[in-house]
Amino acid sequence: MKNLHCIIMAGGSGTRFWPRSRKAKPKQFLTIFGDESLLQATISRFAGFIPEKNIFIVSNKGQQGVLEEQTTRLPKENLIYEPVGRNTLPAIGLAALFVAKNDTEGIMVVSPADHLIKDDELFQQTIGSAVKIAEKKNGIVTIGITPNAPATGYGYIETAAEIETGQSIRSFAVNCFVEKPKMETAIQYLSSGKFFWNAGIFVFKVSVFLKAMERYAPAIYTDLMKIAQTIDTPEYENTLNELYPQLEPVSVDYGIMEKAGNIFLVQGDFVWNDLGSWEQVYQYGEKDEAQNTGVGEVIFQDTKNSYAWASNGLLAVVGMDDVIVVKENDMVLVCKRSHAEAIKQVADQLKTDKLEHYL
Amino acid sequence: MKNLHCIIMAGGSGTRFWPRSRKAKPKQFLTIFGDESLLQATISRFAGFIPEKNIFIVSNKGQQGVLEEQTTRLPKENLIYEPVGRNTLPAIGLAALFVAKNDTEGIMVVSPADHLIKDDELFQQTIGSAVKIAEKKNGIVTIGITPNAPATGYGYIETAAEIETGQSIRSFAVNCFVEKPKMETAIQYLSSGKFFWNAGIFVFKVSVFLKAMERYAPAIYTDLMKIAQTIDTPEYENTLNELYPQLEPVSVDYGIMEKAGNIFLVQGDFVWNDLGSWEQVYQYGEKDEAQNTGVGEVIFQDTKNSYAWASNGLLAVVGMDDVIVVKENDMVLVCKRSHAEAIKQVADQLKTDKLEHYL
Repeated sequence: MKNLHCIIMAGGSGTRFWPRSRKAKPKQFLTIFGDESLLQATISRFAGFIPEKNIFIVSNKGQQGVLEEQTTRLPKENLIYEPVGRNTLPAIGLAALFVAKNDTEGIMVVSPADHLIKDDELFQQTIGSAVKIAEKKNGIVTIGITPNAPATGYGYIETAAEIETGQSIRSFAVNCFVEKPKMETAIQYLSSGKFFWNAGIFVFKVSVFLKAMERYAPAIYTDLMKIAQTIDTPEYENTLNELYPQLEPVSVDYGIMEKAGNIFLVQGDFVWNDLGSWEQVYQYGEKDEAQNTGVGEVIFQDTKNSYAWASNGLLAVVGMDDVIVVKENDMVLVCKRSHAEAIKQVADQLKTDKLEHYL
Repeated sequence: MKNLHCIIMAGGSGTRFWPRSRKAKPKQFLTIFGDESLLQATISRFAGFIPEKNIFIVSNKGQQGVLEEQTTRLPKENLIYEPVGRNTLPAIGLAALFVAKNDTEGIMVVSPADHLIKDDELFQQTIGSAVKIAEKKNGIVTIGITPNAPATGYGYIETAAEIETGQSIRSFAVNCFVEKPKMETAIQYLSSGKFFWNAGIFVFKVSVFLKAMERYAPAIYTDLMKIAQTIDTPEYENTLNELYPQLEPVSVDYGIMEKAGNIFLVQGDFVWNDLGSWEQVYQYGEKDEAQNTGVGEVIFQDTKNSYAWASNGLLAVVGMDDVIVVKENDMVLVCKRSHAEAIKQVADQLKTDKLEHYL
């Protein structure tokens, strides 16, 4: 695939994977499965069909150290830093400037850095289908994950008519983007067959995206164009630091996808998970006969259906069922699997208790 | 109380409190409640009515470092070291030599170092009653704890006729010592009112004990007498190292109490527990409204009926019920309270897995 570029969005932060994910090392930099971090696995997935020189990462200065450490295979100039986080539309817009600089008709694939995707071949075919549609229709194409459950934790995309019928990978016109639903609605979505999960993966020509920005987010577009003129000049850093923080923080979904008309969806049937909590890490990991996953020096005794991870030292788990135990250096989380979402509240309590140094 | 001496048996080792109790620091040296270790609390309890110069500790050379650290209030010559553990009869016999050296008619109180006792005043009164009977009857007096449950984890003492009636603290002749019973038997013991828990606390004149040893354990007695002659001479260490390891390893219960005729029991109604597992530590500790105990930097969230202890770092316990979590440096135990007894098997597995360095 010629002219194909990839933008990996790696600026996220969060506490869902505390104590492993911390301010200085959020989820995308964690080695959760195998030997690569989620970011590195994402790069490897794209490097299978996109030249490394065309793979860009958007992150922020606070993560520069760990980012450079984990991306030695990429040119350093492909690491793009936001001065501050302004949500996904400005971030994708900023990255688009770097692609457009060399290749105004290039195709961009935008992807989160921290999701689990299995079956690289099907993923590559799916992106391939999206690229074709993006070119042919001059549209913005999103990958919609086929739901296998009435999930209430994801945004959905409602499709309209199928296009390009007869392909092994189906594609559709998009009706609308919808927010995370209640369970009742999610059940209806699932049974309708028309709704797909929004995985945050988008494919489009740079020129099409810039045009959409100009129309639906003109203020952001104008400032980004000013920044564009300084790329590769000594003014770039100053201009970026001056203008970027003033951009309206808006998501690409809200700022463009829900407004533009030329949006399409390609159906993603590969295994996908956004790894929103330790529970999902447990669900998607390899398990032993007792349905336990142990990483590091872990002893399970009379224990089942549990996940234990130790950065160092020793973890002994005795007589437990359905628990997550994570030891990161001198911080330990012991959590009922059903409470994995509540870890965010631990972060709140750490702040209340003036224990922020553990965040 | 003149001529009163105390012998605290502090040579024990064990893995029930892993990862806190380890080879180099068994249970008696742990600070489990309050600011003092169990040994220090035992010393303080006796120091309330026995001069410190009369308080002796029997331990072993492997524990010399931590023992000296924790017993700075006692004269160093009161720390008696077994070359190897030979069970309680030789250990008490060895300690008796040191008491007899200065005071052949002195009274000895023998006590474990690692039990929980609450209500120091009642404890002191109980020992006072035992001392009176030991002197008056020239007997060996044991403190029998009044059972409040059909415990199967303790040895019992069956009493015969009450003696010295009319006292607030009752005392009895002893019929026999019995091993840990099955539940059915324990229920009978409890309802009979004749059976008491054997807490390993004994009171006797040194001369009476030595006479009993001479009669019921003559081989041990003979060798101990040889050792006695070398106390305060340069020969002591060599003689001890030569003879002591050859002594028959026998408990004072089996070697004397079950054989001698002049055994009495004073009823102990103070709160007592042998702290045989983390579960008992939980039971006897102070708890918050959710019935949790947290020691160190611990965050409980949606958690109840649980015990968490952290030597350092941070422990977050989320959505749990009935668990014990103990973090000692880089070792962590997570254990269902009902499985607290199974911690011994963790030790076995550590050996199997060649992870003995965590013991």
